[in-house]
Amino acid sequence: MFDYDVVIVGGGPAGLTAGIYLSQANYRTLLLDKSSFGGRIQNIELIENYPGFSAGVSGAQLASEMVNQATRYGIQLETAEVNNIEFYSNSRWVDCTEKGYSTSMIIIAGGCREKRLGVPGEEKLVGRGVFFCAFCDGGKFRDQVVAVCGGGNSGVTEALYLAKLVSKVIIIELLPELNANALLLQRVRENPKIEVKCGIKVEEIVGDNRVEALKLLDINSKESFVLPVNGVLVKIGIEPNTEYLKGIVTLDSEGHIIVNDKMETDNPYILAAGDIISGSPRQLATAVGTGAIAAITAQRRLQELG
Amino acid sequence: MFDYDVVIVGGGPAGLTAGIYLSQANYRTLLLDKSSFGGRIQNIELIENYPGFSAGVSGAQLASEMVNQATRYGIQLETAEVNNIEFYSNSRWVDCTEKGYSTSMIIIAGGCREKRLGVPGEEKLVGRGVFFCAFCDGGKFRDQVVAVCGGGNSGVTEALYLAKLVSKVIIIELLPELNANALLLQRVRENPKIEVKCGIKVEEIVGDNRVEALKLLDINSKESFVLPVNGVLVKIGIEPNTEYLKGIVTLDSEGHIIVNDKMETDNPYILAAGDIISGSPRQLATAVGTGAIAAITAQRRLQELG
Repeated sequence: MFDYDVVIVGGGPAGLTAGIYLSQANYRTLLLDKSSFGGRIQNIELIENYPGFSAGVSGAQLASEMVNQATRYGIQLETAEVNNIEFYSNSRWVDCTEKGYSTSMIIIAGGCREKRLGVPGEEKLVGRGVFFCAFCDGGKFRDQVVAVCGGGNSGVTEALYLAKLVSKVIIIELLPELNANALLLQRVRENPKIEVKCGIKVEEIVGDNRVEALKLLDINSKESFVLPVNGVLVKIGIEPNTEYLKGIVTLDSEGHIIVNDKMETDNPYILAAGDIISGSPRQLATAVGTGAIAAITAQRRLQELG
Repeated sequence: MFDYDVVIVGGGPAGLTAGIYLSQANYRTLLLDKSSFGGRIQNIELIENYPGFSAGVSGAQLASEMVNQATRYGIQLETAEVNNIEFYSNSRWVDCTEKGYSTSMIIIAGGCREKRLGVPGEEKLVGRGVFFCAFCDGGKFRDQVVAVCGGGNSGVTEALYLAKLVSKVIIIELLPELNANALLLQRVRENPKIEVKCGIKVEEIVGDNRVEALKLLDINSKESFVLPVNGVLVKIGIEPNTEYLKGIVTLDSEGHIIVNDKMETDNPYILAAGDIISGSPRQLATAVGTGAIAAITAQRRLQELG
C-alpha cells in the first residue's frame, strides 16, 4: 500500500485546486510545498480578475481560503522540497530532502519563480535594496526612490502599489514601450509619482552595502548613464521550477512541462497543472482550471491502475 | 467602425470571465444571453469545489458576483437569442431575433442545456411534475415523492437537496451503479430519505394533467413495473447549444465545438469557451479557465486585425 494515492508538488492555486477535488473525492492526497501554501498570489495586494469577487480580493485572503478549503476535506500538507522522483514497478517515490513518500500518481504544480537580471551587483544586493515583491518588501522603501525593472503587467501592477508608499517610482523597460494592459497603462499615466523609461537596459546595480544607483544604457543613443535609486524591484518575468524533472518528463525550450488537454505529460504517472505547463497564460483562472482537469485525470488513472 | 470589439454569446461563468478580462482591458464588449446572466450555476444550492470559498458558496451568489464584476468595468449586457452569424470582409454580424450587432471577434460560451429522456409523457408533463432543476422547482414537491432520473454527480447532488424538502427521493439510474463521486455517494448512503434503483430504464411518464407514476423496466429481469411518484426530476446529462453554429465552426459528434489550447475554432473570428467546447470536463473551474484563455486570445487577434 502506498503512502498516498496522489502527491501534489506545489501549493499554489493549481495544486490547491487539484487538492480540493481529490480530497473531496476521498483520495489520500499529500500536498507538498518547499516554503508556504497559497503560492505567489499571497504577494498580490488586490486580485481583480479572478471571477467571483466583484470588488476584488486580496491575494493573501484568497490563498488562505483555498488552503482552508483543501484541508477541510482532509488533504495532508507538508513543507518539503522535492529533489527527485523515482519509478518502481508498482509505485512512485517522491524524494525530498528530509524524507520521501510513496504514491500512485503525481501532479506537478510547482509554478515559477522570478527571473534575475543577471547583472553585476544583483546577487550581492538581494535583501539590501534589491527585491522581487513590492507587496512583501515595499514598506521598507517609504519616501524613497525605487526603480522597477520590467514594464509588463506584473511590473506595472507592483509599480502602482509602490507609488502609494515611496516618493518616486521609475519603471525601466528594455522594449520601446510598456507591455501592460490598457487599464494598468491608464493608471500609470494618471499617477504623478510614476516615471516611465523605455528602451533602457540595466547594466549594473551599483552599491557597496546597499543599493545606491543603477547603471543604465539607452538602447537608441548607446549612451550609458547612472540613475540614483534606493531600491530595485526586479520584475522581468518568471521561470519554471522544473530542474529536478529533466529526463523525467519532456520540457519545452524554456523548461516548462509539455502536457496535452488532459494535463498528461509523457510519463504515465505524472500530470502537471498551473503556470509550470508549456503555453500557460499564467492566470489564476487558468491555474484553477488546469488544476481541476489534472485532478479529474488523476482519478481516471487511479481507477485504471486499480 | 463596428458596434463592438468582441461579442460574447452566453452569460455563464465562461462568458462572464471572458467579459471581465476584456472589459478590464478596455475593449468594447457585449455579452448576450437568451435568458439570464450567471448561467446554470444560478441553480446550484451550494458550490463546494470552486477554489476560493472555503465554506462553499451559493451558485446564485457566485453568479451575481461575477455579473457585477463584469459590469463594473463597463461590459454591455443584452438579453437576446442568437440565430445566425454572418461574415463580411471587414466585420462579423451577430444576428438575433429582434436586432443584430456588428463586431470584430466573437466568443461562443453558450454552454449546454438539460437532455430530455425522450419517453412518452415527458414533454406533455413538463411543468406538471416533470422538472429539470431541484433548486428552482423542488419546493413545489414538499412532503411528496420525487424520482430523480440520473445517478451522476448532478442527479445525486440534486437528490440530496430534494431530500431536505420532500418525503422520499428515488434515484433511478440506467447503469448498474451510481456514477457520482465518493463524497456524494457517502451522503446518499447516510440519507434515510433516499432510495437508489440501478439498472432501471424509464419507459414512460404516466399522468393526465399531473405526473402520477413512472413506468420502469428492470434491465436484468426484463420486467416492467409502475412506480407511483408525484414528481420527476430529469438529470441525465446535457447537450450543447450549438444548433445555429452548424456549418460555421467544426463540431464534434455530440455537437460540441472543437477548439485548440488557445480556444480557437477553425473559424478565425470565432473562439469558444466553457462547457460548450469538445472534451470539457464541465467544471466551474475549467469554465473560468477557458474563458480567460479565450479573452487573451481575442486580445491578441484584435491587435493582429488592427
